[in-house]
Amino acid sequence: MTNQHSSFDLPVIFDYIEKNRSTFIERLCNYLRQPSISAHGLGIAETGQYLSGWLTHLGLETELIPTAGWPVVLGRRNDAPGKPTVILYGHYDVQPPDPLEAWVSPPFEPAIRDGRLYARGVGDNKGQHSAQLFALESLLACSGKLPCNVIVLLEGEEEVGSPNMPAFVSKHRDKLSADLVIISDGPVDVSGQSRLEFGVRGIVSFELRARGANKDLHSGNWGGVIPNPLWTLVHLLASMKNNKGGITIDGFYDNVQQPTELENQALAKLPVDVEAVKRDLGLIRFDEPIERPFFDRLALWPTLTINGLHGGYGGQGSKTVLPHEAVAKCDIRLVEAQSVEEIFGKVEAHVKRFAPDVEFIRQGGMDPSKTPLDSPFAKPIWNAIVEAQGGEPQIVPAMGGSLPNYVFTKTLGLPTFLVPYANADEANHAPNENMEVERFIMGIKTGASMLVHLGRSATN
Amino acid sequence: MTNQHSSFDLPVIFDYIEKNRSTFIERLCNYLRQPSISAHGLGIAETGQYLSGWLTHLGLETELIPTAGWPVVLGRRNDAPGKPTVILYGHYDVQPPDPLEAWVSPPFEPAIRDGRLYARGVGDNKGQHSAQLFALESLLACSGKLPCNVIVLLEGEEEVGSPNMPAFVSKHRDKLSADLVIISDGPVDVSGQSRLEFGVRGIVSFELRARGANKDLHSGNWGGVIPNPLWTLVHLLASMKNNKGGITIDGFYDNVQQPTELENQALAKLPVDVEAVKRDLGLIRFDEPIERPFFDRLALWPTLTINGLHGGYGGQGSKTVLPHEAVAKCDIRLVEAQSVEEIFGKVEAHVKRFAPDVEFIRQGGMDPSKTPLDSPFAKPIWNAIVEAQGGEPQIVPAMGGSLPNYVFTKTLGLPTFLVPYANADEANHAPNENMEVERFIMGIKTGASMLVHLGRSATN
Repeated sequence: MTNQHSSFDLPVIFDYIEKNRSTFIERLCNYLRQPSISAHGLGIAETGQYLSGWLTHLGLETELIPTAGWPVVLGRRNDAPGKPTVILYGHYDVQPPDPLEAWVSPPFEPAIRDGRLYARGVGDNKGQHSAQLFALESLLACSGKLPCNVIVLLEGEEEVGSPNMPAFVSKHRDKLSADLVIISDGPVDVSGQSRLEFGVRGIVSFELRARGANKDLHSGNWGGVIPNPLWTLVHLLASMKNNKGGITIDGFYDNVQQPTELENQALAKLPVDVEAVKRDLGLIRFDEPIERPFFDRLALWPTLTINGLHGGYGGQGSKTVLPHEAVAKCDIRLVEAQSVEEIFGKVEAHVKRFAPDVEFIRQGGMDPSKTPLDSPFAKPIWNAIVEAQGGEPQIVPAMGGSLPNYVFTKTLGLPTFLVPYANADEANHAPNENMEVERFIMGIKTGASMLVHLGRSATN
Repeated sequence: MTNQHSSFDLPVIFDYIEKNRSTFIERLCNYLRQPSISAHGLGIAETGQYLSGWLTHLGLETELIPTAGWPVVLGRRNDAPGKPTVILYGHYDVQPPDPLEAWVSPPFEPAIRDGRLYARGVGDNKGQHSAQLFALESLLACSGKLPCNVIVLLEGEEEVGSPNMPAFVSKHRDKLSADLVIISDGPVDVSGQSRLEFGVRGIVSFELRARGANKDLHSGNWGGVIPNPLWTLVHLLASMKNNKGGITIDGFYDNVQQPTELENQALAKLPVDVEAVKRDLGLIRFDEPIERPFFDRLALWPTLTINGLHGGYGGQGSKTVLPHEAVAKCDIRLVEAQSVEEIFGKVEAHVKRFAPDVEFIRQGGMDPSKTPLDSPFAKPIWNAIVEAQGGEPQIVPAMGGSLPNYVFTKTLGLPTFLVPYANADEANHAPNENMEVERFIMGIKTGASMLVHLGRSATN
C-alpha cells in the first residue's frame, strides 16, 4: 500500500502548485479574455477550439464533439486500471454581462483587485473547471500519471439550460462509462467553509405573453372596458404563488420528496448567519413568512421566480396609457422527484384554465438530481477536501441552483458530487463577477487531492 | 329679435368657413409643427408665445400669465353686454410621441392621408381649440363682433395633470368671471355621432417602487429566501384590484355617487357596437366579467390601470436572475364625489399596510367633475350642434378621460360642457394620432354656432 501511495505524494504536489501559482493565474486570465456567451452565440466556437487544444496539450485523448447546439469538449486518460473512472464536468459558456455600466472593470478584461480576480465567468465556471485541468497538469508533472482514470467533459450551453446534454449523454453513453462524476461549480458557504454537495434543484424556464388591444390606448377613454395585459399577468401570476411563497398550481407539490433522515441531520448542521446575509445584500427583510428552514427552502424545496416583467410605460414621470402587451419571464426550481415534463404540463394547464388568452412559451428545463449521502465515494472526497483545504467541508444535501446533473444521476446512473471552489459573493449572473485568487489555487489542490484519495480508496 | 339675429346669420358664417377651409387647415398644420411636450418641457414656452400672438391678432385682449409651471394664455373680448360670458378652455401641450418608430409620418410633420390629418396633438387638443379660434375669426369676419362675451383660456400642462390650474383659477378668479365653460376635447362616438358631455372622471397617478437585495442575484442560489420585488408588486397590485375588475382598497367606493335618474336615462340611450369596437381594436374579449353596463363602467365608475410595470430581465431568451428592483406606474380614474386627496390617502394607507417596504410616490391628480343634465345652457348648445352638424348629439353624463374641469365646476361654480370634435379613432396618447379633416371644419362651424345660439338664448 505504501508503495502505491508514494507516487502521489500530496505535499509534493501542493508544493508544485504553490510554486506555479502565478503561471496558473496568468493562464486563467488568458482563458477569461475569451468571451463565450451562449445566449448570444458570442465566442463559443472559438472557446471550444481553445479548450480542445488545452486538453490535447495536457496529454488527454481529446475530441470536440458536435451537438445540435455548441460542441462538447471531451478528453480522457486511462492511467489507472482497476481504479475508479471519474468524470470531471464543467461548462465553458458564461452569462451575458449586462448591465455593462455596472462593471468596475470590463467583463472580458480580467483584473485583480484586493485578492480577487474580476471577470465574467471566473466563478461560473471557468475558474473552477480550469482548476481541475491545472490539477491534472500538476499530478502529471509530479508523478507522470494520474491516480484515477479521468474523463473531462466541458459543455458550452449550461447557461442556456444545457438543451443538448441529455441527447449527448444518451448518444455517447459508451464514451462516458465511469464510476462517479465530480463537478466544481457554485459557491462555498458565506463563512468561507468548503462544501460537499450531493444534489441540485432542477429548473423550468418559461415566458408568459399577454395581449390586449392591437395598440396602446388612452387609459381614460378606455380604462374599465378594455383588458389590460399587465393586469392579466398580475392576476395570473398571483394565482400561481401566494404572498406567503406557496405555489398554488394544482398538484405542484405532488411529487416533492421529503428530506431523508440523513439529509435532515446534515441540514440541521448547516450554519447560516442570517444577519450577515441581510447586511451583505442590503436587505430590509427575508422573504416572509419563513415557514420552512433557510436551507430547506433554498435547496430541498421548489420556488417560482419572476426573472423579469415588462409592459407599458417605463419612462420618466407618468403616462396615462393602457398598454397593449406585457411579458413575464419566470423560472421554477424543481426538487426530487419533480420532473421538467410534469411541471411544464401542470403550469401550462394552470395558465390555460386561469388565463386562456395568455401565450405560454416553454424555454427549457433540467430535471433535479440527488446522490445519496451514504454513497461509498463520499468519504474519500471528504478526506481529500480536508487534506487540501485544512478544514472539514459542510455536507449539503442539495444546492439551490441548477446543473444538468440529472444526465449523470438519472441517465447514466452515476453518483454525482459537487465540490464548489468559488467564494459566496462571486456575483455570478451579475455585474463584477469575481473569484478569490486563493480559492482558485485551493481549487487546484483540491482537484489533485480528490483524484489521489479516490485512487487510494479503491486499493484493497 | 330678428334684427339681433340678422347680424349673426349662421348659413353665411358656415359659407365663409367653407370658403376658407384650406387656409384654416394650413394654419392648423403650422401650429402642429410646433412641438409642445409638457412632460419633457419641449417647445412649450415657444408655443405659449405663438398663441399669444394669434389671440392678439384675433382682436382679443391677451395675456400670457405665468404660473409655477408653464404659462396660461388668456384672451378676452366683451362684445355683448347682457349676453352670457363663455370660457373656451383648451390645452396647448401634447403627449410625448414615443414609440417614434410606430409613426407612419413623423409626429411633428403634419401629413394628410385619406382625409385625415396626422400629427401629435392634432386631436388632443390643438385641432380642437384652434377650431374655436377659427370660429371666433369667422364670426368677426362675417359680423364684426361676437354674439357672446368670450374668454379664451389655454393651458400648457394638461397632459401632465394640470398641476397649476387650481392655483391659477383661484388666483385669477376676477379674470374668469363667466356664466359657463365650453371645452372641445376627446372624441365623438365611434359611429361618428357628435356628443354633448357633462362630466369627466378625475385621476390620480402614482408610482410603486419595490426593492429587494442591493443587486441582481442568481435565482437558483437565492430563490426561496430573498424577496423578489416583482413578486412584491404582483401581490400588492393583486391586493388592490381583483380579477373581476373590483377595486379592493378599503373604503375606495365610499363616496361614489350612483347615477341620477336623468343620467340613467341618457346612459340607456347611448349606442355601442361592441363587436365593432372589438374588431377595431383587435380584441379577443372585453374586460370581463362585465357586471356594469359599458358606458357606466367607462365614465361613471372608477378604474385602476397599470400604465407600466418594469423589473428584471427583458431581453431575448431567458436569464435566471432574481431582480433587485421593480417599478409600477398606475392611474386611478375617479368619479363624483371621490376626491384626489381622499383616494391618495386610501391607496397610500393600503400600500403601507400590505407592503410597507414599497415606496409610494404621488404623481398628481385631478378631481372629477359633473354638470347637471338639466342646466339651462344645455338646450342652446344642443341646438347649436344640431344646426352646425345636421344631426342630434348624444347626451353623455360623463366621459372616461380626465380634464381639469373641476376647477370650473367646483372652484368657480360654473356649468361646464364638453363638445368634442375629434373622431373616435383619433389615437391620442398613441402613435399616428389623427383627426378627420371634415371634423376639424365641422368643429369651426360648431364653435361659431354655439356662440350664436348662446347669444340668442339670453334674449328675452
